[in-house]
Amino acid sequence: MASEAAAAGAARAPRREDQGEDPALNDVGVNSVPSFKAEDTVLQLSDAKKPKPELEGLQFGTVFTDHMLVIEWSSEGGWEKPRIQPFGNLSIHPACSAMHYAVQLFEGMKAYRGADGRVRLFRPMLNMTRMLKSANRACLPGFDRGELLECIRKLVEVDQEWVPQSESASLYIRPTFIGTEPSLGVKKPSRAMLFVILCPVGSYFSTGTKPVSLWADSKYIRAWRGGTGDCKMGGNYGASIYAQYEAVDYGCQQVLWLYGDDHQITEVGTMNLFLYWINEKGEEELATPPLDGIILPGITRQSILDITRQWGEFKVSERYLTMADLRLALEEERVKEMFGSGTACVVSPVGRVLYQGENLQIPCESNCPPLVSRLLKELTDIQEDEAVYGISEKMKKSLHTAVI
Amino acid sequence: MASEAAAAGAARAPRREDQGEDPALNDVGVNSVPSFKAEDTVLQLSDAKKPKPELEGLQFGTVFTDHMLVIEWSSEGGWEKPRIQPFGNLSIHPACSAMHYAVQLFEGMKAYRGADGRVRLFRPMLNMTRMLKSANRACLPGFDRGELLECIRKLVEVDQEWVPQSESASLYIRPTFIGTEPSLGVKKPSRAMLFVILCPVGSYFSTGTKPVSLWADSKYIRAWRGGTGDCKMGGNYGASIYAQYEAVDYGCQQVLWLYGDDHQITEVGTMNLFLYWINEKGEEELATPPLDGIILPGITRQSILDITRQWGEFKVSERYLTMADLRLALEEERVKEMFGSGTACVVSPVGRVLYQGENLQIPCESNCPPLVSRLLKELTDIQEDEAVYGISEKMKKSLHTAVI
Repeated sequence: MASEAAAAGAARAPRREDQGEDPALNDVGVNSVPSFKAEDTVLQLSDAKKPKPELEGLQFGTVFTDHMLVIEWSSEGGWEKPRIQPFGNLSIHPACSAMHYAVQLFEGMKAYRGADGRVRLFRPMLNMTRMLKSANRACLPGFDRGELLECIRKLVEVDQEWVPQSESASLYIRPTFIGTEPSLGVKKPSRAMLFVILCPVGSYFSTGTKPVSLWADSKYIRAWRGGTGDCKMGGNYGASIYAQYEAVDYGCQQVLWLYGDDHQITEVGTMNLFLYWINEKGEEELATPPLDGIILPGITRQSILDITRQWGEFKVSERYLTMADLRLALEEERVKEMFGSGTACVVSPVGRVLYQGENLQIPCESNCPPLVSRLLKELTDIQEDEAVYGISEKMKKSLHTAVI
Repeated sequence: MASEAAAAGAARAPRREDQGEDPALNDVGVNSVPSFKAEDTVLQLSDAKKPKPELEGLQFGTVFTDHMLVIEWSSEGGWEKPRIQPFGNLSIHPACSAMHYAVQLFEGMKAYRGADGRVRLFRPMLNMTRMLKSANRACLPGFDRGELLECIRKLVEVDQEWVPQSESASLYIRPTFIGTEPSLGVKKPSRAMLFVILCPVGSYFSTGTKPVSLWADSKYIRAWRGGTGDCKMGGNYGASIYAQYEAVDYGCQQVLWLYGDDHQITEVGTMNLFLYWINEKGEEELATPPLDGIILPGITRQSILDITRQWGEFKVSERYLTMADLRLALEEERVKEMFGSGTACVVSPVGRVLYQGENLQIPCESNCPPLVSRLLKELTDIQEDEAVYGISEKMKKSLHTAVI
């Protein structure tokens, strides 16, 4: 079935111009080599199909589909042909630069099945662009973003039976790009491997959309100016796990990452952060920290900004927010909602922040307060191509992409 | 031959008490599981031996010996038996947490062959202790440092023919520890793999001990308070490569890493940094930045401090140094030498620093100025068990360890 679907050659992935991207952005990156081409993809289908798991209670990222995409690169030979092959272990040299020096990056995307049965990706070219930017920062070779997206579309097409029929579930797509230099010494890798794996996922947090509790402390800093916090590189994440468990020791579920002597609020766990409040000037405002180099440019973050700006119902700002701002606003009852955003969870309300020994209670009338509920519904509706109130058809079209 | 040597059971690696280490330091780490035992090591010897390379002109880290050490761990089964097995690729799950979230760390050590033919390690328990500390920070399981060192000793014994006879060459030892969690999601890994690979090395820098040129700019920051700069975790290194190539674009060989608004001098490339000067009080001083969380606690760094303190010939300080301090001292001709230190290079003199568009020339009478020359000779002599002037026999004994 999968092979027939693939052979049928459904809609090609969108060109980057369709997504309002700058076509002049250099797709060949730091190494100036010609990209791989999706049309060269070699298909090696799996003999056996794995059983699909029950999505109810399925833990995020634990079950993978039947196939994976692998594209290898070397400085002497350039990009090889993309391969769609059975999912399985990789053979990795023990000196591999991804395992010694974290020459690695990843992306997170989702494929959704709409009521019409078609499969859609949510603003995939934004992921391709961010991935290319991360590759440049990691000294990994460049590629054509449209070609990579088309390869991913082909992979999803091959494993399309794995895209859940359920509303709350989706197929998580994990593009990964690693240096596979087989020698020691900190240097630009002469070999690299780009691969993409897929897993069906239910809701990200085991608590569903219940509000999360945060530990806010400046003991650990997620990212800093001159670092890699604005790229999706592995080192940003591994360094955060220790703090995450310290948050749990303090009875909280996630870390609220602070920065600077004024304790700026930056991100929450692995998500971007939003504060919906009456600001210090008395304006109703949805605010999130600006992309100043220490904030990951989240696709969901950007989409929330785009959608709420189009609503035009309140001020939407990219601005600095400090713990002092938050505390004062809570005292003066000016905080309406606070939430995290990310591909895995979409939006996640915050219910409590532990800061300097004090539990700050964030208003959360219900488990899913009004703005979070509305954003969750609108984003999910866009992803599944349902009618969406309050945004134009053109806007909606720019936010999702039917691929199969 | 190797197997006979291994079977012969030469000197066991030293207990940590021999190295002046605190025996109370918790060897079981964050997971509180019993350690693997060296005596359980399973030996699977290679059928064929690879030819040994010419050391002259051999690039660092490109040729590996016949065997490797592999020790696997899982949360349910604890540590497995250590295996010494033929060097070869690892089979890695594509969701492996080391490749997505940089759950990884490494160490760098060297084995030296003395004129007496015996093989020595240089302060190996300091590496074991730092590795355990990195493991804790990375949320990887703990282990008994003495047992790991004994496993490494066995591995070096098996591949002892690879320890070069040459004075300037050695066998580089690369312990590596990675999370092998086979699922996505940023969390403490439930699986891990510790492995050790070996490579014969000549001199680290292709320029030999010629002075290096540095690019000093605050555009990129190596490490920051609340981060992982004091642990040998991969993320610290991968993030540095981009800056390294920018240094090359500016006509320099390495990056001089700055920190803070006052442009503190922290590290150089992948080395610790020393300034030998007449300080602002007119004192002859050897200075290196303090271990305040952003500096890697280098074994060579510590040894240089220990040796020069025992000499008692000048003041030895762990203190902050800024670019303003350096520039003023250069103007007033108070700088004697500046150099980097690390396992790979031992010591490496600095000849020039490009800072704010200005080339600061560091005194370098010869290619290898007096203090650098003396430290290089004393450290190498200790490593090879030669007579060393100026330090006690007890001190010397504490600095090296005959293992075979």
